Amino acid sequence: MSNGKHLAKGSTPPVLGNDGKLRLYSMRFCPYAQRVHLILDAKNIAYHTIYINLSEKPEWYFDKNPLGKVPALEVPGKENITLYESLVVADYIEEAFPDKQRKLYPSDPFKKAQDRILIERFNGAVISPYYRILFSSDGIPPGAITEFGTGLDIFETELKNRGTSYYGGDKPGMLDYMIWPWCERVDLLKFALGDKYELDKQRFGKLLQWRDLMEKDDAVQKSFLSTENHTKFLQSRKSGENNYDILS
Amino acid sequence: MSNGKHLAKGSTPPVLGNDGKLRLYSMRFCPYAQRVHLILDAKNIAYHTIYINLSEKPEWYFDKNPLGKVPALEVPGKENITLYESLVVADYIEEAFPDKQRKLYPSDPFKKAQDRILIERFNGAVISPYYRILFSSDGIPPGAITEFGTGLDIFETELKNRGTSYYGGDKPGMLDYMIWPWCERVDLLKFALGDKYELDKQRFGKLLQWRDLMEKDDAVQKSFLSTENHTKFLQSRKSGENNYDILS
Repeated sequence: MSNGKHLAKGSTPPVLGNDGKLRLYSMRFCPYAQRVHLILDAKNIAYHTIYINLSEKPEWYFDKNPLGKVPALEVPGKENITLYESLVVADYIEEAFPDKQRKLYPSDPFKKAQDRILIERFNGAVISPYYRILFSSDGIPPGAITEFGTGLDIFETELKNRGTSYYGGDKPGMLDYMIWPWCERVDLLKFALGDKYELDKQRFGKLLQWRDLMEKDDAVQKSFLSTENHTKFLQSRKSGENNYDILS
Repeated sequence: MSNGKHLAKGSTPPVLGNDGKLRLYSMRFCPYAQRVHLILDAKNIAYHTIYINLSEKPEWYFDKNPLGKVPALEVPGKENITLYESLVVADYIEEAFPDKQRKLYPSDPFKKAQDRILIERFNGAVISPYYRILFSSDGIPPGAITEFGTGLDIFETELKNRGTSYYGGDKPGMLDYMIWPWCERVDLLKFALGDKYELDKQRFGKLLQWRDLMEKDDAVQKSFLSTENHTKFLQSRKSGENNYDILS
């Protein structure tokens, strides 16, 4: 992942030449965009990253993506139409680059469907209470912390039942990468819950082992940010400053 | 689709024998469950339907599906684990039964991704304002009718650009079937908006032609309910009676 600046209103679209590489429109701290970086990096696919300032979106960006969202993926030869929705883009990459060594879904459609169900459940069971804890203006909503723990229980139990280091087996697969961005950011909860917050080492033993392994994964390393850096951006966001280039 | 009764609390799980058929847990009026009926019927796959009373869920159903949701699909040989989430189940069927003549996604991964993006957009752009119009307790929320129309515009334009009768080409494909259940129910808006409500014949000309064609599709016919029957259930739902067996 490059450290380029985020393009904003008044910018001109980057000129990249016809080198046949994919172009990923991203934001350095966006967990949904990170999903797509992870899949491209896991499959060793070369691509350009173009960072977008989401508070002051470049006018030209709406020609690339009518919703102005990131992540969005531009495929050479299909200019002026981007693919978006992080899960759809991740699945697209998996299907469009089957020749790459790394297969991220189980071959059995039933097992693949089970992984996709868990990706969906992570949304409601973990991501949703996570954001409610972090961003509620009125203090932490009652029940949100319990709900967050109960959500993580599902993933602790699943990893235990699979008996493997990763959800994908002996290497991270699609499920690992799709849930990773929020797991990388879990210690951000200290921001809302105080410095003593930590995941219970007994209750989430497998998940914590998994997190340590994931942090060392080559693909994860390429987009990884420390809790300190995530916190810097969160503070900038909460202050209304939204400094996307805080690390540049 | 059968006309069996909806099983409720206190019922016993149905005994179906080992005939190798898929088992679909459904609710007669649920548009998400209808998505899965449509895919199974489009591909001419034989299956059993077990209707679940969603207000008084059978105790045994939580062993089949921890969330107690419909649709859920049980695959012979994989008892006690169901697949759920309508889009995941639809994709599973498409992948697990590739030998069936009917292919519901484009072969090109890029085009497939575009269809999946439109399915996601339908959620936010059409289904969301649809339910806000129909179920707001305080009258129709400002802007919801405009939003609903703007959402449908996307699908009108898309069909015009494709220049085909169906989104899937000369036959309905995944996108057609995934958005159909709410299009079948569109005249239910009369319930909230009054008898004179209708889709603008100029603005939505292509969509209305498409709707007429879809109504005649064999797979659609198998689960189709008239606006009159959808209205009966809606009334029963709004009154708190929730009579799932209103047509039996």
